[in-house]
Amino acid sequence: MGLVVQKYGGSSVADAEGIKRVAKRIVDAKKNGHQVVVVVSAMGDTTDELIDLAGQVSPIPAGREFDMLLTAGERISMALLAMAIKNLGHEAQSFTGSQAGVITDSVHNKARIIDVTPGRIRTSIDEGNIAIVAGFQGVSQEGKNITTLGRGGSDTTAVALAAALDAEVCEIYTDVDGVFTADPRVVKKARKIDWISFEDMLELASSGSKVLLHRCVEYARRYNIPIHVRSSFSGLQGTWVSNSNEAHSEQGDRKVEQAIISGVAHDTSEAKITVVGVPDKPGEAAAIFRAIADAEVNIDMVVQNVSAASTGLTDISFTLPKAEGRKAIDALEKTRSAIGFDSLRYDDQIAKISLVGAGMKTNPGVTATFFEALSDAGVNIELISTSEIRISVVTRADDVNEAVRAVHTAFGLDSDTDEAVVYGGTGR
Amino acid sequence: MGLVVQKYGGSSVADAEGIKRVAKRIVDAKKNGHQVVVVVSAMGDTTDELIDLAGQVSPIPAGREFDMLLTAGERISMALLAMAIKNLGHEAQSFTGSQAGVITDSVHNKARIIDVTPGRIRTSIDEGNIAIVAGFQGVSQEGKNITTLGRGGSDTTAVALAAALDAEVCEIYTDVDGVFTADPRVVKKARKIDWISFEDMLELASSGSKVLLHRCVEYARRYNIPIHVRSSFSGLQGTWVSNSNEAHSEQGDRKVEQAIISGVAHDTSEAKITVVGVPDKPGEAAAIFRAIADAEVNIDMVVQNVSAASTGLTDISFTLPKAEGRKAIDALEKTRSAIGFDSLRYDDQIAKISLVGAGMKTNPGVTATFFEALSDAGVNIELISTSEIRISVVTRADDVNEAVRAVHTAFGLDSDTDEAVVYGGTGR
Repeated sequence: MGLVVQKYGGSSVADAEGIKRVAKRIVDAKKNGHQVVVVVSAMGDTTDELIDLAGQVSPIPAGREFDMLLTAGERISMALLAMAIKNLGHEAQSFTGSQAGVITDSVHNKARIIDVTPGRIRTSIDEGNIAIVAGFQGVSQEGKNITTLGRGGSDTTAVALAAALDAEVCEIYTDVDGVFTADPRVVKKARKIDWISFEDMLELASSGSKVLLHRCVEYARRYNIPIHVRSSFSGLQGTWVSNSNEAHSEQGDRKVEQAIISGVAHDTSEAKITVVGVPDKPGEAAAIFRAIADAEVNIDMVVQNVSAASTGLTDISFTLPKAEGRKAIDALEKTRSAIGFDSLRYDDQIAKISLVGAGMKTNPGVTATFFEALSDAGVNIELISTSEIRISVVTRADDVNEAVRAVHTAFGLDSDTDEAVVYGGTGR
Repeated sequence: MGLVVQKYGGSSVADAEGIKRVAKRIVDAKKNGHQVVVVVSAMGDTTDELIDLAGQVSPIPAGREFDMLLTAGERISMALLAMAIKNLGHEAQSFTGSQAGVITDSVHNKARIIDVTPGRIRTSIDEGNIAIVAGFQGVSQEGKNITTLGRGGSDTTAVALAAALDAEVCEIYTDVDGVFTADPRVVKKARKIDWISFEDMLELASSGSKVLLHRCVEYARRYNIPIHVRSSFSGLQGTWVSNSNEAHSEQGDRKVEQAIISGVAHDTSEAKITVVGVPDKPGEAAAIFRAIADAEVNIDMVVQNVSAASTGLTDISFTLPKAEGRKAIDALEKTRSAIGFDSLRYDDQIAKISLVGAGMKTNPGVTATFFEALSDAGVNIELISTSEIRISVVTRADDVNEAVRAVHTAFGLDSDTDEAVVYGGTGR
């Protein structure tokens, strides 16, 4: 039995009862003969409460001190978890990100991990302890200041530690039973995925699936660390995310058939901006996206239609996070005369629906089936973009639930029963 | 203008408003040309809430993880305070005890400071920042684990940093205007003391005065750091505690007349144990106090009466913290047959009243006046113990307020007006 890294989100440790339940699960893994390293998020709403406090003393809390503040959250949960484990008769030690050797760059509030030097963790587990590590936080290489990795950073902490410690697996415990073929809150017949490749998981994560963050999966793929996403409430086998789909079941070795389609993701957090009447000549699109980039706005889908021959003008549409809509519009307005477009249209009543699966590379009918399913459901397609293993469309926000269900059924993803269960809130 | 260390207790930073008020006060000191280092406690009831959480996950939370938990409290307050200062247009950086170089021994929950290496603090203030340091916490020299200094530890942090940084003064901000000649909640006419010597302050602290802890004053005396105890609410001049009483007023140099009596302290936190019928022969008292010491119980006053010639038996009484009463009784019962005493009496309805002042060394009438005042007030004396600059008596707990007022009046300590004001709760 080797080393296991387990990560528990805020909803799993929301109160004393949750902490005690998680402690039992950790001790079980230890009793099974594993060395166990646990990464834990702040309890329930702690982070939001701290952000609220910060807002009361300063309208623009950010940077170094904001990170110092937020990292108090994991400090509380990890110490309590260590106490609860000791109370079950096992030895545990908690470590801050800094003590655990999580070294980051100096970009406060959204730092990137640049190295992990887990010497103290290795010593602690070799002495027989269970090591509890604060998720979401690190220490900057320059200046030795406390940093945070941004929302979802605890998952990345777990995968990075698993890589540095050469763990067998990184178990991400959450409030659902695993990764589903669609959002179980929308599709009652969504099925839990037993195994999914890193590549498909990356596409799902960037298409609106919230179970794992893109950054975390990217890190796991780079260091080839299998991730096991599972529920801290049910104890069932969850979803394995890895390069190979062999030998990942706790029930023994078995090979799961790779599905043509892994799942259907949707995302209602984006808005669409259309730049109307752009002169169709070289450099115009570049000027538009340079203005957007200079405003530090991240864009997602981009579509440019063929220009009308009569006018020589074209429209360029792109999607972006709603939260950055204002910034993008302002940046574009400033360049209107230089670029010479007619007008801007802003639309935040859109949804993106994505079909993900490596199988579509070798199954030519996928796109047709996808569009037919939407058409049969009476859903209009506004934008289309594709990658090798993903097709995404933009529709009206009102249509999203019906569209996801229709596509899910059309690709034979529906389970025979309503199996999906959601246990709690959402972690970070 | 030199360097000032300011310490703010939990009641001064209990909420966002408190933090903003304290931030203004800190910025004022900076504007006056001082370099400013601030030591801050956890907000209001934070520590108690964390202790309560710990109790919910484990009945015996202690040691390393308990310290990890509690230190989250100062992390929150110091980060918020730094944000509030930045919001006033000044630069501030917060530092944990570990980052500030507060090195302790490895005794978790009540560590002692063994060194302070404030290199990062020095750099920060030399760069023009206000440095905010977490009180109450440090890092162990061996093992680099997070430690706490026990209740009241923030005051000690402040004095230790002031010594290491060679500060002009250590200002302890609290919720009263300074050190008073008696507890203002008991004696309405108690006067604020303008200046008091380290020695008298040490006696007051060990006799029940709660404004400064003994350990903090002891540290200040050893390194000769003047302490200025003052209110974070009123902004008035408070009480200077130092070796010399010259040049301590912000209004300019002046010498305050040393009073014969500094003040009257009282303490209702102790109980009295009487060991009845102890054979009056060598080694008996030693055996009793060895049993107490082995149980790690701290005792305060000890009195042994002359034995009755007829029986050869004597009684030995001592006082100790009520919280340790059970432990002491248990330890003594176990040795009863070996020592051969008759019985134990436990009495927790007592109060200790102490008169403190270096002047009593050269004023022979002090003891007589003290006892006469108690007698006139109808207060019975049960035990007496004295040091060179202190007289303490034990009375019934019911009599304590009347006794303190009577003694306060008898030594001419009453002010002409009811000047004492208490602003908030109690800090730590």
